[in-house]
Amino acid sequence: MKIHGDTNSGNCLKVKWVCDRLALPYTWIGVDMLKRETRTTPFLKLNSAGQVPVVEFDDGRVLAESNAIIRYLARGSDLIPADEFAAAKMDEWLFWEQYSHEPYVAVCRFQMKYQGKPASDLDPDKIKRGYAALARMEHQLAATRYLVGDNLSLADVALLAYTRLAHEGGFHLDGYAAVRRWIVEAERSLGLPPAR
Amino acid sequence: MKIHGDTNSGNCLKVKWVCDRLALPYTWIGVDMLKRETRTTPFLKLNSAGQVPVVEFDDGRVLAESNAIIRYLARGSDLIPADEFAAAKMDEWLFWEQYSHEPYVAVCRFQMKYQGKPASDLDPDKIKRGYAALARMEHQLAATRYLVGDNLSLADVALLAYTRLAHEGGFHLDGYAAVRRWIVEAERSLGLPPAR
Repeated sequence: MKIHGDTNSGNCLKVKWVCDRLALPYTWIGVDMLKRETRTTPFLKLNSAGQVPVVEFDDGRVLAESNAIIRYLARGSDLIPADEFAAAKMDEWLFWEQYSHEPYVAVCRFQMKYQGKPASDLDPDKIKRGYAALARMEHQLAATRYLVGDNLSLADVALLAYTRLAHEGGFHLDGYAAVRRWIVEAERSLGLPPAR
Repeated sequence: MKIHGDTNSGNCLKVKWVCDRLALPYTWIGVDMLKRETRTTPFLKLNSAGQVPVVEFDDGRVLAESNAIIRYLARGSDLIPADEFAAAKMDEWLFWEQYSHEPYVAVCRFQMKYQGKPASDLDPDKIKRGYAALARMEHQLAATRYLVGDNLSLADVALLAYTRLAHEGGFHLDGYAAVRRWIVEAERSLGLPPAR
């Protein structure tokens, strides 16, 4: 299996973390988003959406969208709750992450870290919505150890990707004690070095 | 089961269509987004993300995010491919819908239809990305009957919701013959009256 990805992208790291955790063998094919390598003709043939990560299986089948990939790779593992309703709550977080968290927390980080925008030039609406996403996580993580109950699931993998890097997008986690506690625990559980 | 939803929202209609198709009984609780009924204290208690649809089961459990809801309600039905990789491709479309289609096609429609914006005032970037999403669907639907092969799946339910209303957001489907053919077929398959 090949993972086409950029290690600067949290979306791509989700796939790496799941493979590492589940001991799934893979070859990492570096794709530099900043050099627009996701826009070349060969890449667009792989994924017409022009996005990483993309997973290419040995038989040639291809799968895109980070959360669809990790959901497929982790099937049958302890990263997906066995209880069907708990798995649905995990899915709720996965969709919420892509719609209500990534477009704000990850995009602010991208603009600051890779486009060199000062924090003062960020879109105030994106900052507001990013903090709203962090507040919603704080609310949950003050009540439960992980996002879906007591055990690490793909919901944590997906939300960890950019939450642990939120400071690179100008977000301050000072008032988010439960989120900070969870970052440390989820990083440790995935065998990752602390992001800060 | 109660569905808290707004019939003006394609995201809410997805849930209704799946329930109707699978003959799942429900009570529809109208929530008027335009009157900010998703921002009241009782509603935020139901879903702290302040979004419809929300499904409330008879035992009090609550599930949000349209695509997570339909994935849960349709489990074991013919709306989810039995083949695991085909189900993963369905998930790929579901996540893509929320990240790369809805924020452009549905948001332009919302601004024109409910906020009274003329087409000329829409964000050109949103229009461009909306057409890019429609072009990607066209590419797939020129090759296969439905988004994931020969059979209707949740991918079609999710993408139909706003694609059939794209004209209300100023999008012209003249150059998208396969998408138009698919809209007719998917609407018929779900027992819906034509949107136009």
